[in-house]
Amino acid sequence: MSRLTLALDVMGGDFGPRIVIPAVATALNQHSMLSFLLYGDQAIAQPYLNNLTAEQQRRITFVHTPQQISPDLPLATALRQSKGSSMRMAIEAVAEGKADGCVSGGSTAVLMALAKRLIQPLPNIDRPALTSLIPTMNGKSSVMLDLGANVEADQHQLTQFAEMGNIFAEVMLKLVFPRMALLNIGTEDNKGSQTVRDTHQALKMRNDLNYLGFIEGDKLMNHLADVIVCDGLSGNIALKTLEGAVKNVLSFFKTQEGDLCRLAKRYLLRLIFYRYYRKLKQINPDRHNGATLLGLLSVVVKSHSGAGSNAFYYAIEYALSQIENQIPQKISQGLGRFGDLA
Amino acid sequence: MSRLTLALDVMGGDFGPRIVIPAVATALNQHSMLSFLLYGDQAIAQPYLNNLTAEQQRRITFVHTPQQISPDLPLATALRQSKGSSMRMAIEAVAEGKADGCVSGGSTAVLMALAKRLIQPLPNIDRPALTSLIPTMNGKSSVMLDLGANVEADQHQLTQFAEMGNIFAEVMLKLVFPRMALLNIGTEDNKGSQTVRDTHQALKMRNDLNYLGFIEGDKLMNHLADVIVCDGLSGNIALKTLEGAVKNVLSFFKTQEGDLCRLAKRYLLRLIFYRYYRKLKQINPDRHNGATLLGLLSVVVKSHSGAGSNAFYYAIEYALSQIENQIPQKISQGLGRFGDLA
Repeated sequence: MSRLTLALDVMGGDFGPRIVIPAVATALNQHSMLSFLLYGDQAIAQPYLNNLTAEQQRRITFVHTPQQISPDLPLATALRQSKGSSMRMAIEAVAEGKADGCVSGGSTAVLMALAKRLIQPLPNIDRPALTSLIPTMNGKSSVMLDLGANVEADQHQLTQFAEMGNIFAEVMLKLVFPRMALLNIGTEDNKGSQTVRDTHQALKMRNDLNYLGFIEGDKLMNHLADVIVCDGLSGNIALKTLEGAVKNVLSFFKTQEGDLCRLAKRYLLRLIFYRYYRKLKQINPDRHNGATLLGLLSVVVKSHSGAGSNAFYYAIEYALSQIENQIPQKISQGLGRFGDLA
Repeated sequence: MSRLTLALDVMGGDFGPRIVIPAVATALNQHSMLSFLLYGDQAIAQPYLNNLTAEQQRRITFVHTPQQISPDLPLATALRQSKGSSMRMAIEAVAEGKADGCVSGGSTAVLMALAKRLIQPLPNIDRPALTSLIPTMNGKSSVMLDLGANVEADQHQLTQFAEMGNIFAEVMLKLVFPRMALLNIGTEDNKGSQTVRDTHQALKMRNDLNYLGFIEGDKLMNHLADVIVCDGLSGNIALKTLEGAVKNVLSFFKTQEGDLCRLAKRYLLRLIFYRYYRKLKQINPDRHNGATLLGLLSVVVKSHSGAGSNAFYYAIEYALSQIENQIPQKISQGLGRFGDLA
């Protein structure tokens, strides 16, 4: 990795510095060329910063931001009050070239609005789309977008999501002609909303996209497609339901502290089912935390607001790998080839 | 159970008689007062019917229906060609009072259209809603509707779903003042579509419903609400994603035939983790197969088109318990108390 700086909104999300700073420590240990610009409330963050080694602290610049954006505010009010907030200052750091990308666990709507205003969408992109790599049962990943940045999306926007997702999969998953599907409530041509049906017909005509057709929610984890396209409402509901279901089922295999019998069972289980455990680990939603606002001039990653430090660390990794892979530039260049067809 | 007759569309779904007839056999064994009217292709069904005992065959009337509805047809064409089809004749049997309810694994849209036309919605109900009991982690169930009968739903319809779901939960889950939530992509007042936000505000004002607020997809299995209300698109995507995720994770613990080592592991696992297995079984989507078209004058249950015989059997059980609980009558009576408020 070449020298990189990541800006973090330390206050975003449900747990703030308590989970962000330990994630920072892990990331610093993993990447010797990485440094951080941290934006947050110094008093709240200090106890956690004190846990870092001197070497780790040298690679951190902490900027005190007393202002916070309440998640309950209407969007317009939140934006007006955003000046000096940890989220806004992290985005500004990217806009001003002080950082190569940023990560925040704060409100998606505010992040989207601020990022669009301060960093700007790529030329010809109407609306950025929240994009994640979702886990599949064979240990690989599918690209899924939009996951909640756009509650509604028309045919033109869904087509842009398809094109951006296609390039993202080519670069991040190293695929040639990635298989693409449109999320719907059935697989026949006549299923779903008019917008989805129209987009389906239009994508079927495209020779430059490997469009397979509709995919239903129950097949999301089966790696039937490399890119899954949807509007933000469907995508958000599908992703959250997926995460909740997987986490809930995995929780069966967690033990409670102090319960020796269970602890013994747990290790016995791990011993016998090593292979299963490895697989279960692969599909753990924490490892897939982080959705990028695809279609911006720089990398902006939204972490799950309820993320723990492990999950937040994966959101940092996700941002780093996109910066290294020059995703914004690749999207910008790649869209050119679809230009005359879109 | 008093004497009951259930009409079945034997040809609906992906597997037809191969899974329906064994489910019929199980149901007949479970309920001595139950009989079936079966509608399907006699030649295809005969080999499976031959497997039934003489006593089972006595409680079955098989009606040959050569006509089938292709799932690929546009709705209008499908309806025109539905005359004499297994699905339509099963619904007609209910409409004519020959059967107390029916189950079909065929197309949701066709089933909804035929049921609305032949059986009719209850007075004051605009649109029936597909309603299921979804599994939760504590072994209980939540009522969820609509699961795909109405791709779009306005505030008035969502409110009717809430009222019907409330009565359904009272009767089927034996609850007083069931807790209710609205599916959305966030829990703050400003999240989601305008329709969902408006419905949220209206439900908050109701004293006759125990409305808690928004629920997100990742909490569906956590029994935070007894009734979960949504439009058919969100609901269908959420339910299918939930089923797919749970089934996929559970599949880790299935063994392949002939693999002795795995077989040994499987039994070892079951022995040690008896309690977990019981829990895993409880959340198996097969056990929750069947969505009822709530708001009709009779019980019409849609089985998952990909259901196996075990899952189809649970759809039969679901229909039976609704008939016994007189759900259509209870909904009709119960809506009266909401009358002046709706």
